[in-house]
Amino acid sequence: MLEIRDSAIVRVSAVREEIRAGRFVGQTSTIAPGILQGNVAIVPKSYADDFKRFCDLNPKPCPLIAVAAPGDPYLRELGDIDIRTDVPSYHVFRGGERVAEVADIGDIWTEDLVTFIMGCSFSFEEALCQAGLTSRHVEMGCNVPMYVTNSQANPAGPFSSEIVVTMRPYTPERAIEVIKLTARFPRNHGAPIYFGNPDKLGIRDINKPDFGDSVEIKEGEIPVFWACGVTPQFAIARAKPPIAITHKPGCMLVTDRLSREFMI
Amino acid sequence: MLEIRDSAIVRVSAVREEIRAGRFVGQTSTIAPGILQGNVAIVPKSYADDFKRFCDLNPKPCPLIAVAAPGDPYLRELGDIDIRTDVPSYHVFRGGERVAEVADIGDIWTEDLVTFIMGCSFSFEEALCQAGLTSRHVEMGCNVPMYVTNSQANPAGPFSSEIVVTMRPYTPERAIEVIKLTARFPRNHGAPIYFGNPDKLGIRDINKPDFGDSVEIKEGEIPVFWACGVTPQFAIARAKPPIAITHKPGCMLVTDRLSREFMI
Repeated sequence: MLEIRDSAIVRVSAVREEIRAGRFVGQTSTIAPGILQGNVAIVPKSYADDFKRFCDLNPKPCPLIAVAAPGDPYLRELGDIDIRTDVPSYHVFRGGERVAEVADIGDIWTEDLVTFIMGCSFSFEEALCQAGLTSRHVEMGCNVPMYVTNSQANPAGPFSSEIVVTMRPYTPERAIEVIKLTARFPRNHGAPIYFGNPDKLGIRDINKPDFGDSVEIKEGEIPVFWACGVTPQFAIARAKPPIAITHKPGCMLVTDRLSREFMI
Repeated sequence: MLEIRDSAIVRVSAVREEIRAGRFVGQTSTIAPGILQGNVAIVPKSYADDFKRFCDLNPKPCPLIAVAAPGDPYLRELGDIDIRTDVPSYHVFRGGERVAEVADIGDIWTEDLVTFIMGCSFSFEEALCQAGLTSRHVEMGCNVPMYVTNSQANPAGPFSSEIVVTMRPYTPERAIEVIKLTARFPRNHGAPIYFGNPDKLGIRDINKPDFGDSVEIKEGEIPVFWACGVTPQFAIARAKPPIAITHKPGCMLVTDRLSREFMI
């Protein structure tokens, strides 16, 4: 275990160096096998308690991995990480509107900002592949399809949102195995929240996702839905804080921790 | 834990005394909360290796808990158990045909018989109730509906059978929780093997189970199917050994072990 950890960390160091230097600004989905990656949300201190409560009330879309102290750009419990430089690409929001995409937030960082890291599905995607249950979008080499549902997350202060879901199609037999496996990743959205009829979630056309790419649902397969880390980004847009920063979707924070450390 | 175990064992001792004396010959579903109960199959020594292999090849319908040495009526690893007296009611088969229902097999026991004990769903039924996911047949106070499927168990020597399944209806959201919970009971049939369209299992009319009672499937619910301990009884009937003995369905062996000792 230590040996696995050490060799993974050596690989991660090289990746982090590239990201930190601004030379790598792309998707992180396959660049660090076995390593925990995270969704990033940074909000002003006056919004932090409510955002923390929003995450605690909605652990499936917003599974908290770490919260930094106000103004602290370092996330020591996740490794050698400076949140100002160590995400490949950031989205900057002002008043709930996205105003910039940048590779570094050193120039806009202030003592007033609080960083939240949430687990993401990359951890269980790897496990699905290893178990012969590879997601369709991974097979197809495209983005996972995402849908805005009619199901409301539990609100907290100014933070509220429809729950956004990802979809992976499986036969019922394989869905049972996938439910069992993803349930072991509670800090990475965990087990699905629904399967079957998309109407029940308010999804009008399963072939027209709101984000990501459409994937084929084969004969005998049913759509299976997981809570998605885009949900907190919706909540931030709704809350309209004067400033907020997130990772660019797909361009995650790569930590120094192993995914399996967060499995049950 | 020790205290729970001790108080459960005290209760079980009283139950066993009644069963051993032939005063209790009925269903065992609620008589020993927290205690592991088992399906029983007893076959001649010359059939035992094949039957063992049949169980090993089909762990979902036939999850082995214990196998006794040939001729040994005691199951020490499961507690103070004499298999000749400690099952409330037995079915006796000769040449694959059921020829008797008895409360004691002391008079037909021989040195040539080998006892197999397999886990049963009573263990997870209790856990489902405690989790607010009570099975419909338990709510209705009737037997679980069972169906003979068109899916074949893996054969071993003379032992072969269609897989028999039990059915419990749930909404998709609740089915996900039920899959997660029953997966923790691999020695009690574990997670379901299928959900959704009964046609795929060759079930013509879900309202007409082959055994047990029909239960209501409410609007928004889907049928969820588990492998069933009746499967090995089918295999024994097909193999036609000169003698075989099983428990009468529902009248299980009550052990001295806790269900939770077999959970993962």
